[in-house]
Amino acid sequence: MELINIGAYVLLYLDEKRKFLVKVEKEKVFHTHKGYIRLDELIGKPYGVKVKSSMGISFIALKPTLKDYLLRIARKTQILYPKDMALILVYTNIGPGSKVVEGGTGSGALASLIAFHVKPDGKVYSYEVNKEFLKVAERNLKKLGLADYVILKNLDLTKGIEEVEVDAVILDMPTPWLVVPHAYKALKNTGVFASFSPTIEQVIKTVEAMRKEGFIDIESIECMVRGYQVEAGRTRPQTLAITHTGYLTFGRKMLKEDSNSS
Amino acid sequence: MELINIGAYVLLYLDEKRKFLVKVEKEKVFHTHKGYIRLDELIGKPYGVKVKSSMGISFIALKPTLKDYLLRIARKTQILYPKDMALILVYTNIGPGSKVVEGGTGSGALASLIAFHVKPDGKVYSYEVNKEFLKVAERNLKKLGLADYVILKNLDLTKGIEEVEVDAVILDMPTPWLVVPHAYKALKNTGVFASFSPTIEQVIKTVEAMRKEGFIDIESIECMVRGYQVEAGRTRPQTLAITHTGYLTFGRKMLKEDSNSS
Amino acid sequence: MELINIGAYVLLYLDEKRKFLVKVEKEKVFHTHKGYIRLDELIGKPYGVKVKSSMGISFIALKPTLKDYLLRIARKTQILYPKDMALILVYTNIGPGSKVVEGGTGSGALASLIAFHVKPDGKVYSYEVNKEFLKVAERNLKKLGLADYVILKNLDLTKGIEEVEVDAVILDMPTPWLVVPHAYKALKNTGVFASFSPTIEQVIKTVEAMRKEGFIDIESIECMVRGYQVEAGRTRPQTLAITHTGYLTFGRKMLKEDSNSS
Amino acid sequence: MELINIGAYVLLYLDEKRKFLVKVEKEKVFHTHKGYIRLDELIGKPYGVKVKSSMGISFIALKPTLKDYLLRIARKTQILYPKDMALILVYTNIGPGSKVVEGGTGSGALASLIAFHVKPDGKVYSYEVNKEFLKVAERNLKKLGLADYVILKNLDLTKGIEEVEVDAVILDMPTPWLVVPHAYKALKNTGVFASFSPTIEQVIKTVEAMRKEGFIDIESIECMVRGYQVEAGRTRPQTLAITHTGYLTFGRKMLKEDSNSS
Repeated sequence: MELINIGAYVLLYLDEKRKFLVKVEKEKVFHTHKGYIRLDELIGKPYGVKVKSSMGISFIALKPTLKDYLLRIARKTQILYPKDMALILVYTNIGPGSKVVEGGTGSGALASLIAFHVKPDGKVYSYEVNKEFLKVAERNLKKLGLADYVILKNLDLTKGIEEVEVDAVILDMPTPWLVVPHAYKALKNTGVFASFSPTIEQVIKTVEAMRKEGFIDIESIECMVRGYQVEAGRTRPQTLAITHTGYLTFGRKMLKEDSNSS
Repeated sequence: MELINIGAYVLLYLDEKRKFLVKVEKEKVFHTHKGYIRLDELIGKPYGVKVKSSMGISFIALKPTLKDYLLRIARKTQILYPKDMALILVYTNIGPGSKVVEGGTGSGALASLIAFHVKPDGKVYSYEVNKEFLKVAERNLKKLGLADYVILKNLDLTKGIEEVEVDAVILDMPTPWLVVPHAYKALKNTGVFASFSPTIEQVIKTVEAMRKEGFIDIESIECMVRGYQVEAGRTRPQTLAITHTGYLTFGRKMLKEDSNSS
Repeated sequence: MELINIGAYVLLYLDEKRKFLVKVEKEKVFHTHKGYIRLDELIGKPYGVKVKSSMGISFIALKPTLKDYLLRIARKTQILYPKDMALILVYTNIGPGSKVVEGGTGSGALASLIAFHVKPDGKVYSYEVNKEFLKVAERNLKKLGLADYVILKNLDLTKGIEEVEVDAVILDMPTPWLVVPHAYKALKNTGVFASFSPTIEQVIKTVEAMRKEGFIDIESIECMVRGYQVEAGRTRPQTLAITHTGYLTFGRKMLKEDSNSS
Repeated sequence: MELINIGAYVLLYLDEKRKFLVKVEKEKVFHTHKGYIRLDELIGKPYGVKVKSSMGISFIALKPTLKDYLLRIARKTQILYPKDMALILVYTNIGPGSKVVEGGTGSGALASLIAFHVKPDGKVYSYEVNKEFLKVAERNLKKLGLADYVILKNLDLTKGIEEVEVDAVILDMPTPWLVVPHAYKALKNTGVFASFSPTIEQVIKTVEAMRKEGFIDIESIECMVRGYQVEAGRTRPQTLAITHTGYLTFGRKMLKEDSNSS
């Protein structure tokens, strides 16, 4: 049975809307609107245990999933949601051992998810022009124990990609179409290109650049996730939902005629 | 540069709607409505190469992604789509090394995706009452090189789960609520339960069983993916789309009071 | 050119998110966060004219559409949106001269829309058990000049319907299934029944009651409307949208065998 | 009780997917895959009656709603669905007495719906460049008894609008942006402009033309309708649905500064 150690992260769960990610440290107190919680009381206890606040309200100490971290990491610089990252992961065929170029790094949410799935033998090469973001990303990757699988690069993807024979190139940046020719060169045969963009104009420019460059099997989609309130006699979809984060575009590298004959 | 060997699978790509998964063998001919293709011409060529049919039409020989296989594997017994499998993967926190119970196996599509992501150190325990399905699943897992990571079991999940301390229990079966108590026992603390169901009544029964059993952080969602036709001046969503495959329900195991004090 | 008179309603438009419905009266001042507006300056001006606030900000004085009123009327007691009312109107075949039973009246939003479309020769019979709501509805109908076409009734639809040979029965109430037999009797041959319900359990009970009673051509739908931000280079769907107000169920009265032979 | 007369249209209903719109005439026989039906047997019977085919299968003779006609009228030249027409009707504030310019006429589906709602005192001015379409539209309007309320014009809306002081201008044509300046002139103050377009590029051009011309309260939306299979224990959304017909754009005429001061 896995126990909570000093330094561990815990997701304090009050209800489905109120969950708090905290680090367990000696003599640390976490304050909520339902009273404070002495975090060192959790040390040595099993995950899943209940803990009471000073006001007598029960919180449950869950072990955070990667998704729990992602939702919190992504908040500041990115709008990629776990739903989008999940589709990217499966549609790009990423798995243990994959070699992936990714950017902009932002706070490192997508890099974290990919690193988690390519480890221990794969690698993520993550590009970011903003040095401040890179520091944040590095901190997040270390927190998650994933820093060994990610090479952070303070370089501009629109200027070029240093890696070759990569399995996938994944973009979440304002001008993905400028990266398309570099991605073509970096990808191995029939490798997968993916791009996330909030606006339809970005999608149009990217798809046109992809067609011109020699990508095929091009697909642009959007993914909507809607939650439900489930309770016998009162079951219904949620009223308000996020109906747009961005469009996802995928394509695969085709060999060009001349490279073929060589 | 990766070359196509005898026995390899290739995705013959004509356009975004017409793609054929074929096995490359000596003297094998593949017939299409655009003429036939001599598959042995592909042997020794790089993936991504163009091949011409007897009618002079070009096809491109892509290396199949796992998603390409899943779409074809799942066709007969299951209605889980890659979009749903992708969300299950990320929402259940599965990654290299995870230990996962899954069922019904069906043709093995979901088991394949999970195996791909837990390998080499993780394991999938896949339950199925129908022996014919298990044979199909075994064949599919072998084809994908994933059989070593999946234990196929001809057992009924509603009767019990043999494993303990598993990271996740994932169900795609008609009566998931009957498995909820077994899943609680099999999961490690704060492990994740997931269930896919086409009807809302299944969701309601499952969520009620989960609440009763001691699951928290319960969430039921549906995921809709809509494709786009992207072409400057003519960009628009697809007219017809699959707007329902099934609902996804997730929850996490909370320690019960008595087990807590022990 | 239509001019703004004393007593007229005007929609003061600042931008797509900030619009205010006001009644033009002598010496009346309307206060906004952008300064105040002297409404009597609008008297005798044409609709569509610009008016400046005390802070020099321009507002445009639009003539309110019925939809502008509906959005404001409905706010307190109902969750029917114009999109749902629009579908009800067209799917129930309501038009000039129709005779319609409707309830619960609530604040009179749906009754107003129907009255607007059945006038001058049609009639709406609107049932409501709550007397306070009826007062609000009466006030709203008078404001819109539609009171002559609506008979407000302080009666419970689950107890019976007094009218016969009506063209449509339209429900927005918690237990529509209890009204189904009364609706069957009240409707003329092949008349249309419609019901709006937020939960799926209400839909299931209503559809089952309809099948039992002799309704055919039964259809349950949901309608989602998503707005777009349209601006060259930055076009995208809105992030958050209302994805659920309620389900709409429609059906038509079939003659029963015995009534047929008589 | 309304009876079926010679010359009347009847919707022969077999189930929710199989309904046939037929005209009742003497000695006329209607053939289906479930046997033939002698239509003259319906003469003098009430709507809603059951009729048996030669194979003994029951059909129900419903009185067609306008929506039943619209679905059949629109099939050939238009992709506007009743859901879109319903939103147009309510969002443009059309009702008894409204004066509306509309085009292209196509087969007259939208003109029919508007005519049905503006009659008896209102009028629809419907523009169409294709003479063949106008003949079809005329036939359809006569069939529906709505021809008196529609002026069909074999003119090009992009060249100008002959009417003035109209309540609404509604477009379903390839280049709506070319009509925007004419619509501005034709509309009365704060009148409503509406346009239906399948592609996002049409929407962008139209919205930009509207902003330039002096329209405000501009809104672009899409409307998705999803059906449900409702049956206790098996309730679920339909698998495949039409998720895109077109985008709807609305706006209102603001008085320009100079016209204001005159």
